[in-house]
Amino acid sequence: MTRILGVDPGLTRCGVGVIDAGSARAVSFVDVTVLRSDADAPLEQRLLTIRDGLVTIIDACRPDVIAIERIFAQHNVRSVMGTAQVAGMALLVAAERGLTVALHTPSEVKAAVTGYGRADKKQVTAMVTAILKLDSPPKPADAADALALAICHAWRGGDLAHDGETEAQRAWRAAVKASRS
Amino acid sequence: MTRILGVDPGLTRCGVGVIDAGSARAVSFVDVTVLRSDADAPLEQRLLTIRDGLVTIIDACRPDVIAIERIFAQHNVRSVMGTAQVAGMALLVAAERGLTVALHTPSEVKAAVTGYGRADKKQVTAMVTAILKLDSPPKPADAADALALAICHAWRGGDLAHDGETEAQRAWRAAVKASRS
Repeated sequence: MTRILGVDPGLTRCGVGVIDAGSARAVSFVDVTVLRSDADAPLEQRLLTIRDGLVTIIDACRPDVIAIERIFAQHNVRSVMGTAQVAGMALLVAAERGLTVALHTPSEVKAAVTGYGRADKKQVTAMVTAILKLDSPPKPADAADALALAICHAWRGGDLAHDGETEAQRAWRAAVKASRS
Repeated sequence: MTRILGVDPGLTRCGVGVIDAGSARAVSFVDVTVLRSDADAPLEQRLLTIRDGLVTIIDACRPDVIAIERIFAQHNVRSVMGTAQVAGMALLVAAERGLTVALHTPSEVKAAVTGYGRADKKQVTAMVTAILKLDSPPKPADAADALALAICHAWRGGDLAHDGETEAQRAWRAAVKASRS
Protein backbone atom coordinates (compact mmCIF):
# COMPACT_ATOMS: atom_id res chain seq x y z
CA MET A 1 0.00 0.00 0.00
CA THR A 2 1.35 3.43 -0.97
CA ARG A 3 -0.14 6.64 0.38
CA ILE A 4 -0.04 9.40 -2.21
CA LEU A 5 -0.65 13.10 -1.60
CA GLY A 6 -1.51 15.15 -4.68
CA VAL A 7 -1.00 18.93 -4.79
CA ASP A 8 -2.74 21.22 -7.27
CA PRO A 9 -0.66 24.32 -6.49
CA GLY A 10 -2.12 27.80 -6.17
CA LEU A 11 -1.91 30.83 -3.90
CA THR A 12 -5.62 31.58 -3.83
CA ARG A 13 -6.71 27.94 -3.73
CA CYS A 14 -4.32 25.00 -3.35
CA GLY A 15 -5.95 21.59 -3.69
CA VAL A 16 -4.56 18.75 -1.57
CA GLY A 17 -5.86 15.19 -2.05
CA VAL A 18 -4.70 12.00 -0.37
CA ILE A 19 -5.34 8.45 -1.54
CA ASP A 20 -4.07 4.95 -0.81
CA ALA A 21 -2.92 2.89 -3.78
CA GLY A 22 -2.79 -0.90 -3.59
CA SER A 23 -2.15 -3.58 -6.15
CA ALA A 24 -4.07 -3.95 -9.44
CA ARG A 25 -4.95 -0.28 -9.76
CA ALA A 26 -6.91 -0.31 -6.47
CA VAL A 27 -7.16 3.21 -5.07
CA SER A 28 -9.11 4.50 -2.09
CA PHE A 29 -9.95 7.94 -0.80
CA VAL A 30 -8.22 9.20 2.37
CA ASP A 31 -8.67 12.97 2.53
CA VAL A 32 -9.14 16.10 0.45
CA THR A 33 -8.99 19.76 1.29
CA VAL A 34 -8.46 23.12 -0.36
CA LEU A 35 -6.00 25.47 1.32
CA ARG A 36 -6.67 29.16 0.79
CA SER A 37 -4.80 32.39 1.41
CA ASP A 38 -6.02 35.96 1.55
CA ALA A 39 -5.38 37.75 -1.76
CA ASP A 40 -4.80 41.00 0.17
CA ALA A 41 -2.03 39.54 2.33
CA PRO A 42 1.64 40.01 1.42
CA LEU A 43 3.08 37.27 -0.80
CA GLU A 44 5.30 35.86 1.93
CA GLN A 45 2.35 35.55 4.31
CA ARG A 46 0.32 33.76 1.63
CA LEU A 47 3.13 31.26 0.99
CA LEU A 48 3.48 30.66 4.72
CA THR A 49 -0.27 30.10 5.15
CA ILE A 50 -0.37 27.51 2.37
CA ARG A 51 2.85 25.91 3.64
CA ASP A 52 1.56 25.57 7.19
CA GLY A 53 -1.66 24.00 5.87
CA LEU A 54 0.24 21.52 3.73
CA VAL A 55 2.57 20.55 6.59
CA THR A 56 -0.43 19.92 8.86
CA ILE A 57 -1.95 17.52 6.31
CA ILE A 58 1.39 15.74 5.71
CA ASP A 59 1.91 15.27 9.44
CA ALA A 60 -1.62 13.91 9.82
CA CYS A 61 -1.71 11.64 6.74
CA ARG A 62 1.97 10.63 6.49
CA PRO A 63 2.12 10.11 2.71
CA ASP A 64 4.90 8.11 1.02
CA VAL A 65 4.84 10.19 -2.14
CA ILE A 66 3.95 13.76 -3.04
CA ALA A 67 2.70 14.29 -6.59
CA ILE A 68 2.65 17.90 -7.75
CA GLU A 69 1.33 19.47 -10.92
CA ARG A 70 4.15 20.49 -13.22
CA ILE A 71 3.88 24.23 -13.93
CA PHE A 72 4.34 25.83 -17.32
CA ALA A 73 4.60 29.55 -17.98
CA GLN A 74 2.06 29.44 -20.77
CA HIS A 75 -0.80 30.97 -18.80
CA ASN A 76 -1.29 34.32 -17.14
CA VAL A 77 2.18 35.47 -16.11
CA ARG A 78 1.15 37.04 -12.81
CA SER A 79 -0.73 34.04 -11.52
CA VAL A 80 1.82 31.53 -12.82
CA MET A 81 4.56 33.06 -10.66
CA GLY A 82 2.53 32.48 -7.49
CA THR A 83 1.61 28.99 -8.68
CA ALA A 84 5.28 28.18 -9.37
CA GLN A 85 6.21 29.44 -5.91
CA VAL A 86 3.58 27.25 -4.24
CA ALA A 87 4.81 24.26 -6.28
CA GLY A 88 8.40 25.08 -5.23
CA MET A 89 7.30 25.31 -1.62
CA ALA A 90 5.62 21.88 -1.86
CA LEU A 91 8.81 20.43 -3.42
CA LEU A 92 10.81 21.88 -0.55
CA VAL A 93 8.45 20.51 2.11
CA ALA A 94 8.72 17.07 0.50
CA ALA A 95 12.50 17.29 0.21
CA GLU A 96 12.87 18.32 3.87
CA ARG A 97 11.07 15.12 4.82
CA GLY A 98 12.91 12.89 2.34
CA LEU A 99 9.60 12.02 0.63
CA THR A 100 9.52 10.87 -2.98
CA VAL A 101 8.37 13.68 -5.27
CA ALA A 102 6.83 13.36 -8.71
CA LEU A 103 5.70 16.02 -11.14
CA HIS A 104 2.90 15.34 -13.61
CA THR A 105 1.63 17.60 -16.36
CA PRO A 106 -2.07 18.51 -16.53
CA SER A 107 -2.46 16.44 -19.71
CA GLU A 108 -0.85 13.38 -18.10
CA VAL A 109 -3.31 13.73 -15.22
CA LYS A 110 -6.32 14.11 -17.51
CA ALA A 111 -5.22 11.19 -19.69
CA ALA A 112 -4.69 8.98 -16.62
CA VAL A 113 -8.14 9.52 -15.10
CA THR A 114 -10.32 10.07 -18.18
CA GLY A 115 -8.30 8.44 -20.98
CA TYR A 116 -8.21 11.78 -22.78
CA GLY A 117 -5.46 14.40 -22.31
CA ARG A 118 -7.70 17.34 -23.13
CA ALA A 119 -10.65 16.41 -20.92
CA ASP A 120 -12.43 19.32 -19.24
CA LYS A 121 -12.75 19.94 -15.50
CA LYS A 122 -16.25 18.41 -15.40
CA GLN A 123 -15.04 15.13 -16.89
CA VAL A 124 -12.08 15.00 -14.50
CA THR A 125 -14.35 15.62 -11.50
CA ALA A 126 -16.84 12.97 -12.68
CA MET A 127 -14.11 10.35 -13.14
CA VAL A 128 -12.46 11.12 -9.80
CA THR A 129 -15.85 10.78 -8.10
CA ALA A 130 -16.45 7.43 -9.79
CA ILE A 131 -12.92 6.02 -9.33
CA LEU A 132 -12.84 6.85 -5.61
CA LYS A 133 -16.53 5.91 -5.12
CA LEU A 134 -17.29 9.25 -3.49
CA ASP A 135 -20.84 10.12 -2.41
CA SER A 136 -20.62 13.55 -4.04
CA PRO A 137 -18.17 15.26 -6.41
CA PRO A 138 -15.23 16.98 -4.65
CA LYS A 139 -15.53 20.77 -4.86
CA PRO A 140 -14.11 23.15 -5.91
CA ALA A 141 -12.32 21.86 -9.04
CA ASP A 142 -8.95 22.24 -7.26
CA ALA A 143 -9.96 19.48 -4.85
CA ALA A 144 -10.83 17.10 -7.70
CA ASP A 145 -7.61 18.03 -9.52
CA ALA A 146 -5.50 17.20 -6.46
CA LEU A 147 -7.14 13.77 -6.17
CA ALA A 148 -6.72 13.26 -9.93
CA LEU A 149 -2.99 13.98 -9.54
CA ALA A 150 -2.72 11.37 -6.82
CA ILE A 151 -4.61 8.81 -8.95
CA CYS A 152 -2.42 9.64 -11.95
CA HIS A 153 0.64 8.97 -9.84
CA ALA A 154 -0.76 5.68 -8.56
CA TRP A 155 -1.48 4.42 -12.05
CA ARG A 156 1.52 5.61 -13.99
CA GLY A 157 3.80 7.75 -11.87
CA GLY A 158 5.25 5.21 -9.48
CA ASP A 159 7.26 3.50 -12.18
CA LEU A 160 8.12 6.74 -13.93
CA ALA A 161 9.45 8.29 -10.75
CA HIS A 162 11.76 5.36 -10.16
CA ASP A 163 12.86 5.18 -13.77
CA GLY A 164 13.74 8.86 -13.55
CA GLU A 165 15.60 8.56 -10.27
CA THR A 166 19.30 7.77 -10.31
CA GLU A 167 21.06 5.68 -7.69
CA ALA A 168 22.61 8.89 -6.32
CA GLN A 169 19.19 10.53 -6.00
CA ARG A 170 17.81 7.52 -4.16
CA ALA A 171 20.82 7.59 -1.83
CA TRP A 172 20.34 11.30 -1.27
CA ARG A 173 16.68 10.90 -0.35
CA ALA A 174 17.52 8.11 2.06
CA ALA A 175 20.21 10.26 3.69
CA VAL A 176 17.91 13.26 4.05
CA LYS A 177 15.20 11.07 5.52
CA ALA A 178 17.63 9.60 8.04
CA SER A 179 19.13 12.95 9.02
CA ARG A 180 15.81 14.71 9.55
CA SER A 181 13.67 12.00 11.11
CA MET B 1 21.70 50.57 12.30
CA THR B 2 19.78 48.16 10.07
CA ARG B 3 21.27 44.93 8.80
CA ILE B 4 20.04 44.13 5.30
CA LEU B 5 20.42 40.83 3.46
CA GLY B 6 20.03 40.98 -0.32
CA VAL B 7 19.12 37.92 -2.38
CA ASP B 8 19.70 37.65 -6.13
CA PRO B 9 17.69 34.47 -6.62
CA GLY B 10 18.79 31.60 -8.84
CA LEU B 11 18.99 27.81 -8.77
CA THR B 12 22.44 27.52 -10.33
CA ARG B 13 23.88 30.55 -8.54
CA CYS B 14 22.08 32.49 -5.81
CA GLY B 15 23.86 35.65 -4.66
CA VAL B 16 23.53 36.61 -0.99
CA GLY B 17 24.98 39.92 0.24
CA VAL B 18 24.76 41.45 3.70
CA ILE B 19 25.36 45.10 4.63
CA ASP B 20 24.76 47.39 7.58
CA ALA B 21 22.93 50.65 6.89
CA GLY B 22 23.25 53.62 9.22
CA SER B 23 22.10 57.21 9.00
CA ALA B 24 22.89 59.59 6.11
CA ARG B 25 23.25 56.85 3.49
CA ALA B 26 26.14 55.21 5.37
CA VAL B 27 26.46 51.55 4.35
CA SER B 28 29.13 49.02 5.26
CA PHE B 29 29.98 45.56 4.00
CA VAL B 30 29.24 42.56 6.21
CA ASP B 31 29.32 39.43 4.07
CA VAL B 32 28.77 38.11 0.57
CA THR B 33 28.49 34.62 -0.85
CA VAL B 34 27.13 32.76 -3.83
CA LEU B 35 25.11 29.64 -3.10
CA ARG B 36 25.18 26.99 -5.80
CA SER B 37 23.27 23.82 -6.57
CA ASP B 38 24.09 20.95 -8.88
CA ALA B 39 22.21 21.31 -12.18
CA ASP B 40 21.95 17.50 -12.39
CA ALA B 41 20.22 17.18 -9.01
CA PRO B 42 16.42 16.92 -8.78
CA LEU B 43 14.64 20.27 -8.44
CA GLU B 44 13.58 19.64 -4.85
CA GLN B 45 17.16 18.83 -3.85
CA ARG B 46 18.39 22.03 -5.51
CA LEU B 47 15.81 24.15 -3.67
CA LEU B 48 16.74 22.49 -0.39
CA THR B 49 20.48 23.08 -0.96
CA ILE B 50 19.94 26.79 -1.63
CA ARG B 51 17.49 27.05 1.29
CA ASP B 52 19.89 25.43 3.75
CA GLY B 53 22.66 27.80 2.60
CA LEU B 54 20.44 30.84 3.00
CA VAL B 55 19.28 29.77 6.47
CA THR B 56 22.88 29.30 7.58
CA ILE B 57 23.74 32.86 6.53
CA ILE B 58 20.61 34.31 8.15
CA ASP B 59 21.36 32.52 11.41
CA ALA B 60 24.94 33.79 11.34
CA CYS B 61 24.27 37.40 10.27
CA ARG B 62 20.81 37.96 11.84
CA PRO B 63 19.53 40.53 9.31
CA ASP B 64 16.58 42.84 10.08
CA VAL B 65 15.39 42.95 6.48
CA ILE B 66 15.56 40.63 3.49
CA ALA B 67 15.54 42.37 0.09
CA ILE B 68 14.82 40.06 -2.86
CA GLU B 69 14.88 40.73 -6.57
CA ARG B 70 11.37 40.90 -7.98
CA ILE B 71 11.01 38.30 -10.73
CA PHE B 72 9.32 38.87 -14.05
CA ALA B 73 8.47 36.19 -16.57
CA GLN B 74 9.98 38.12 -19.46
CA HIS B 75 13.15 36.05 -19.72
CA ASN B 76 13.78 32.42 -20.56
CA VAL B 77 10.73 30.55 -19.32
CA ARG B 78 12.57 27.48 -18.04
CA SER B 79 15.08 29.40 -15.94
CA VAL B 80 12.54 31.92 -14.68
CA MET B 81 10.50 29.16 -13.03
CA GLY B 82 13.50 28.04 -10.97
CA THR B 83 14.34 31.66 -10.18
CA ALA B 84 10.77 32.33 -9.06
CA GLN B 85 10.88 29.24 -6.87
CA VAL B 86 14.11 30.34 -5.20
CA ALA B 87 12.62 33.82 -4.65
CA GLY B 88 9.50 32.20 -3.15
CA MET B 89 11.68 30.05 -0.91
CA ALA B 90 13.53 33.16 0.32
CA LEU B 91 10.18 34.90 1.00
CA LEU B 92 9.07 31.88 2.99
CA VAL B 93 12.30 31.73 5.01
CA ALA B 94 11.89 35.44 5.84
CA ALA B 95 8.20 35.02 6.72
CA GLU B 96 8.94 32.07 9.01
CA ARG B 97 11.27 34.33 10.99
CA GLY B 98 8.97 37.38 10.95
CA LEU B 99 11.62 39.39 9.08
CA THR B 100 10.64 42.38 6.97
CA VAL B 101 10.69 41.52 3.28
CA ALA B 102 11.07 43.91 0.35
CA LEU B 103 11.06 43.22 -3.37
CA HIS B 104 12.98 45.48 -5.76
CA THR B 105 13.02 45.31 -9.54
CA PRO B 106 16.37 45.05 -11.38
CA SER B 107 15.93 48.57 -12.74
CA GLU B 108 15.26 50.00 -9.26
CA VAL B 109 18.47 48.35 -8.07
CA LYS B 110 20.52 49.64 -10.99
CA ALA B 111 19.10 53.15 -10.62
CA ALA B 112 19.81 53.16 -6.87
CA VAL B 113 23.48 52.20 -7.14
CA THR B 114 24.48 53.75 -10.49
CA GLY B 115 21.85 56.45 -11.02
CA TYR B 116 20.83 54.75 -14.26
CA GLY B 117 18.12 52.05 -14.50
CA ARG B 118 19.65 50.37 -17.52
CA ALA B 119 23.24 50.17 -16.27
CA ASP B 120 25.17 47.02 -17.24
CA LYS B 121 26.60 44.42 -14.87
CA LYS B 122 30.09 45.96 -15.04
CA GLN B 123 28.81 49.36 -13.92
CA VAL B 124 26.81 47.81 -11.08
CA THR B 125 29.85 45.83 -9.89
CA ALA B 126 32.10 48.92 -10.06
CA MET B 127 29.65 51.05 -8.05
CA VAL B 128 29.09 48.34 -5.43
CA THR B 129 32.86 48.00 -5.02
CA ALA B 130 33.24 51.76 -4.60
CA ILE B 131 30.22 52.28 -2.33
CA LEU B 132 31.24 49.49 0.05
CA LYS B 133 34.98 50.35 -0.22
CA LEU B 134 35.86 46.76 -1.15
CA ASP B 135 39.47 45.83 -1.98
CA SER B 136 38.38 43.94 -5.09
CA PRO B 137 35.13 43.62 -7.07
CA PRO B 138 32.78 40.92 -5.76
CA LYS B 139 32.57 37.99 -8.18
CA PRO B 140 30.63 36.50 -9.86
CA ALA B 141 28.07 39.12 -10.91
CA ASP B 142 25.45 37.44 -8.71
CA ALA B 143 27.49 38.44 -5.63
CA ALA B 144 27.64 42.09 -6.72
CA ASP B 145 23.92 42.02 -7.59
CA ALA B 146 23.01 40.74 -4.13
CA LEU B 147 25.00 43.56 -2.47
CA ALA B 148 23.43 46.06 -4.89
CA LEU B 149 19.98 44.87 -3.81
CA ALA B 150 20.88 45.44 -0.17
CA ILE B 151 22.24 48.93 -0.93
CA CYS B 152 19.12 49.73 -2.99
CA HIS B 153 16.99 48.76 -0.02
CA ALA B 154 19.09 50.86 2.36
CA TRP B 155 18.74 53.95 0.19
CA ARG B 156 15.18 53.77 -0.99
CA GLY B 157 13.51 50.59 0.18
CA GLY B 158 13.19 51.29 3.86
CA ASP B 159 10.66 54.03 3.37
CA LEU B 160 8.94 52.28 0.52
CA ALA B 161 8.52 49.09 2.51
CA HIS B 162 6.86 50.96 5.34
CA ASP B 163 4.66 53.00 3.05
CA GLY B 164 3.54 49.77 1.45
CA GLU B 165 2.89 47.97 4.69
CA THR B 166 -0.53 48.23 6.30
CA GLU B 167 -1.11 48.29 10.04
CA ALA B 168 -2.46 44.73 9.77
CA GLN B 169 0.67 43.53 7.98
CA ARG B 170 2.89 45.10 10.64
CA ALA B 171 0.80 43.42 13.33
CA TRP B 172 1.02 40.12 11.51
CA ARG B 173 4.80 40.29 11.28
CA ALA B 174 5.08 41.11 14.95
CA ALA B 175 2.83 38.17 15.84
CA VAL B 176 4.81 35.74 13.67
CA LYS B 177 8.06 36.95 15.17
CA ALA B 178 6.72 36.52 18.69
CA SER B 179 5.26 33.07 18.04
CA ARG B 180 8.38 31.67 16.41
CA SER B 181 11.15 33.21 18.43
